[in-house]
Amino acid sequence: MEPHKPARHVLDDAVALQPLDTHQFAGRTTEPYMNMVGPFGGITAAALLNAVLQHPQRIGEPVSMTVNYAAAIEPGEFIIEAIPVRTNRSTQHWTLLLRQGQNIATTATVFCAIRRDSWSEQELQAPQVPDPSELPAQAAGLSSVGWVNNYEFCFVRGNLSPLQPQPLDDSLTQLWIRDLPLRSLDFLALAALGDAFFPRVFTRRQTLVPAGTVTMTHYFHTSADRLTEIGSDYVLGQARATRAHNTYAEQSAQIWSRDGELLLSSSQMAYYKE
Amino acid sequence: MEPHKPARHVLDDAVALQPLDTHQFAGRTTEPYMNMVGPFGGITAAALLNAVLQHPQRIGEPVSMTVNYAAAIEPGEFIIEAIPVRTNRSTQHWTLLLRQGQNIATTATVFCAIRRDSWSEQELQAPQVPDPSELPAQAAGLSSVGWVNNYEFCFVRGNLSPLQPQPLDDSLTQLWIRDLPLRSLDFLALAALGDAFFPRVFTRRQTLVPAGTVTMTHYFHTSADRLTEIGSDYVLGQARATRAHNTYAEQSAQIWSRDGELLLSSSQMAYYKE
Repeated sequence: MEPHKPARHVLDDAVALQPLDTHQFAGRTTEPYMNMVGPFGGITAAALLNAVLQHPQRIGEPVSMTVNYAAAIEPGEFIIEAIPVRTNRSTQHWTLLLRQGQNIATTATVFCAIRRDSWSEQELQAPQVPDPSELPAQAAGLSSVGWVNNYEFCFVRGNLSPLQPQPLDDSLTQLWIRDLPLRSLDFLALAALGDAFFPRVFTRRQTLVPAGTVTMTHYFHTSADRLTEIGSDYVLGQARATRAHNTYAEQSAQIWSRDGELLLSSSQMAYYKE
Repeated sequence: MEPHKPARHVLDDAVALQPLDTHQFAGRTTEPYMNMVGPFGGITAAALLNAVLQHPQRIGEPVSMTVNYAAAIEPGEFIIEAIPVRTNRSTQHWTLLLRQGQNIATTATVFCAIRRDSWSEQELQAPQVPDPSELPAQAAGLSSVGWVNNYEFCFVRGNLSPLQPQPLDDSLTQLWIRDLPLRSLDFLALAALGDAFFPRVFTRRQTLVPAGTVTMTHYFHTSADRLTEIGSDYVLGQARATRAHNTYAEQSAQIWSRDGELLLSSSQMAYYKE
């Protein structure tokens, strides 16, 4: 009798790609990661990164990626084109497009490298916050939105409560977070997690306005092996606005492991209205 | 008799482009902006942005740009290809390549938009620092490197003194800076300024090691009109490392106007050795 084969995790299902030729991959949106308009930007970033990770010519591990959300992705199939435009001995630069028919919805660049042991130092320390076990349970705002239910959010501060709107003094959010169902951390999950903060204008003003990410940049400060060690433990996320000016607002975010290692720095510009 | 025509500013000379066809522009490296290997990354960013700004199909003003330094640019001519891959009513996404022959040296994406008046707020305040007139004159470290001489650096803290190496406690640099010769601020100058911080590993360790930016992202928080108002006044720059890990280090930087308006947020990953 065959052992029970568990269903594929929702994240792995959402980023699954079918190679069409060396540089092209077919994917599709999935219901669990839908956002208010189109899929969650984090899952699109993860799908793009997956094209690089499973590309036969890839060398090294991801160090940075920038994703530009040029248009909403329609529910259904899409094609990702991933081209290694420059490969040096230990580094590789990629350009990517995500399209539906002739419609380019997303552009991206990815940089991979083989890192060597070197002098290393972390200047940006994790904030001191209570352990997840010490925090009261608190439903995440926006839990009616599909993708939000794929995460366990454990807020230290800066949740969203649009039903009791009371603007906060700032947009700072700190939270413990992990994938639901539990899943071992890897670059794909981390790329998605980096976009799992609600738009800062929602947090600051505690109200919903039309808003969406137009560009996001992730810097990965860790290795695949280290992420595997972290497994399905919580990671600590922090996000805040720097400036919101005339319909474009910047968010600066970080994700640390529970023992304080900076795993990801992420910044994004989001459109907002009103 | 014709009035005296001033020579073109070194920055304008360095970013000058000749249109070859709708999407292609010819440029060349210039001696005043040379770095240790190839041209200063900031001037390459400015030249790429200039291709967008002078493209006949451009709409709006720059909101973000990411530049990936895939290979050193050889002294001499280069071609910039700038393609508006997606234009919506008030937004435009660009992909760019800089090549020399068939050799792709740089890739970039740029996002432009027509901003509308809206609720706005700056959360990230400028640090309190002395006025430039109150600071002692201090030659910038690396002044033997060409591009450094195109800026007036007025250090509050975190200069580089590799002749008297004494590691600092952190990599934080704060400085007043402006173009030399004086030049009115615009998006091109601001794009270059965002890269005018020495590699953070130099500052932290007060010693030179092989290092170079591999990817840089700028977020522009202002308008062309506002930059013109600032003119040739000093702007306040700040940069620090978040994490340097196994040959890749992140730098987070900001530039404020003298009256505290956040003009630019910039982040980059730099390679370093040892």
